[in-house]
Amino acid sequence: MFEERKKRTEISELGEFKLIDLLTNDIKNKQSSTITGIGDDAAILQFKADEQILVSTDLLVEGVHFNLSYAPLMHLGYKAAIVNFSDMAAMNATPTQITVGLALSNRFSLEAVQELYAGFKLACEKYNVDLVGGDTTSSTSGLMISVNVIGKAKKEKITKRSGAKQGDLLVTTGDLGAAYAGLLLLERERKVFEETPGVQPEFSGFEYLLERQLKPEARMDVVRKLAEIELVPTSMIDISDGLASEILHLCKHSKLGCHLYEEKIPMDPLTNQVADMFEIHPATLALSGGEDYELLMTIKQEDYEKIKDHAAFIIIGHMMDEGTGAQMINAIDQAIPIRAQGWDGLKNQDKK
Amino acid sequence: MFEERKKRTEISELGEFKLIDLLTNDIKNKQSSTITGIGDDAAILQFKADEQILVSTDLLVEGVHFNLSYAPLMHLGYKAAIVNFSDMAAMNATPTQITVGLALSNRFSLEAVQELYAGFKLACEKYNVDLVGGDTTSSTSGLMISVNVIGKAKKEKITKRSGAKQGDLLVTTGDLGAAYAGLLLLERERKVFEETPGVQPEFSGFEYLLERQLKPEARMDVVRKLAEIELVPTSMIDISDGLASEILHLCKHSKLGCHLYEEKIPMDPLTNQVADMFEIHPATLALSGGEDYELLMTIKQEDYEKIKDHAAFIIIGHMMDEGTGAQMINAIDQAIPIRAQGWDGLKNQDKK
Repeated sequence: MFEERKKRTEISELGEFKLIDLLTNDIKNKQSSTITGIGDDAAILQFKADEQILVSTDLLVEGVHFNLSYAPLMHLGYKAAIVNFSDMAAMNATPTQITVGLALSNRFSLEAVQELYAGFKLACEKYNVDLVGGDTTSSTSGLMISVNVIGKAKKEKITKRSGAKQGDLLVTTGDLGAAYAGLLLLERERKVFEETPGVQPEFSGFEYLLERQLKPEARMDVVRKLAEIELVPTSMIDISDGLASEILHLCKHSKLGCHLYEEKIPMDPLTNQVADMFEIHPATLALSGGEDYELLMTIKQEDYEKIKDHAAFIIIGHMMDEGTGAQMINAIDQAIPIRAQGWDGLKNQDKK
Repeated sequence: MFEERKKRTEISELGEFKLIDLLTNDIKNKQSSTITGIGDDAAILQFKADEQILVSTDLLVEGVHFNLSYAPLMHLGYKAAIVNFSDMAAMNATPTQITVGLALSNRFSLEAVQELYAGFKLACEKYNVDLVGGDTTSSTSGLMISVNVIGKAKKEKITKRSGAKQGDLLVTTGDLGAAYAGLLLLERERKVFEETPGVQPEFSGFEYLLERQLKPEARMDVVRKLAEIELVPTSMIDISDGLASEILHLCKHSKLGCHLYEEKIPMDPLTNQVADMFEIHPATLALSGGEDYELLMTIKQEDYEKIKDHAAFIIIGHMMDEGTGAQMINAIDQAIPIRAQGWDGLKNQDKK
């Protein structure tokens, strides 16, 4: 029988311009703010007079942020875009354009890069964002993805990390810790596979956790809901580094303390199951896991009526004075200081 | 005697947030379009209603775009910013903000990253650009720099690669090939040093070429001059990949051919001297060398009067119909097809 082989086109045969052309020739711009996209020294944008513009950048580095042995390239492209869209959601803004920088070692073929780009394009399609430019170059080892996002919002809607007031409700938008639980499973199966090649990974029943890790979504639906119910949070951030780290950011920028109620932290039963399997305290997955890309916001108490009937808003605590510090109140009413032990790309090089 | 040792602070001791704070706490925003800079999920910008916004991204990868054995970190930061400012100049636009992404292996200390940032800050200071955000993470090997630039221009001033018309003058703004000549010298001395450690590099008299390679400038002065003499080029690009490659871009985007006169290509005598030393035809350095960051533009013949008294505008040819193709006319009146043999980051991984 013939072995089925995937086609492999060497990038070195194409050169940069031909590669970019192959990757981007089917891109059509949808945003009215995109005047000219890919193909010149810069993209040209124009926003309305009452719109402020937001910009943010994220890097994803192979061996640090992702491992290609379990992150399919298309998922990776999708996630790299989503991480940036989530930064816009965190500002109560709407992403409108991205630019993509890729540094590729020569082990990547055209087909591999096309798969990665398929992920960028899928995310852009789904979130109505234009891919307007970028840079593609070689690397001496590994893959590095740099995504820059541009977004827009009316000035009065933009929410920062600062702005929370004492007494404000602390609110998140979905279950936490699942992305990290998914990563634990993927890492475990990778080790099993390395020790016993050929063994099939055992994920059945845990698909939700894998999806939270490999194919996260940005909560633009929450941004739209906030507009619909005419609510502007007093502060907001997205949960990329773990709940603890993000709470501390809001407290620091708003010069406040807080009470977080452990029992109120939304956790999926599967996440709790993984916590048991790995003998980790469940709240630790939520507090330190990261990559959930839910939103964390503070809302004035008088706005409670606006959110109480919407499942997307989950009250997990409230803001206190600065002297109180950031504390988690556990089931037996003990106050535990919240510390950031979230993933830190510079400290724990081997963690992911 | 005591050996003098530079202080070395491990980044792993600091963590990401402390590192970012140390790198950015002295940054002050100067642009009126910068509403909020570093410190939130995104920077917030606001431009005037009659301004269009331009965005561009460039990656610089260690071992591909630079070699730390001869590129001092501060120069490297400076150059990474300049390369992006030059993209704005190429659009006849003014850079206003940058964001900086860094992926660092653990061989970089805080002091090394501070030196790199000193280069970004110096470039921003000199060009009146705000550093408004970024991302700093670890890499498994080497240094990767991703710079994203935002700029502004009035719609009617923006120049693209397309827009040239037959008969337009082909104009550049300074001597070409010097940056590549500088690189040839640096590479040669590096090899000598590797073979005979301790030997001092011999660059005396060639400082200009090294500066063109290590500390290029973006021709914002030309952008200002264009405004002053009320001239909008019909097309423009910056010379990053070599004159040949850029001419072909203008021809392709404008659907034209051109005649470039070899004798008119501005070359510094030192560049010619290096060409002799390395037995390379001098025009090759200009055509294929790259990294000169001069501008290449096309200008209507009737605008000749506006440029003729300004040294910054050097006529090197004119645009022809598409059928003619892009040709260089040499000293004995032979027409030679122009081919892009400029540096291609994906083809020649070992060239720089």
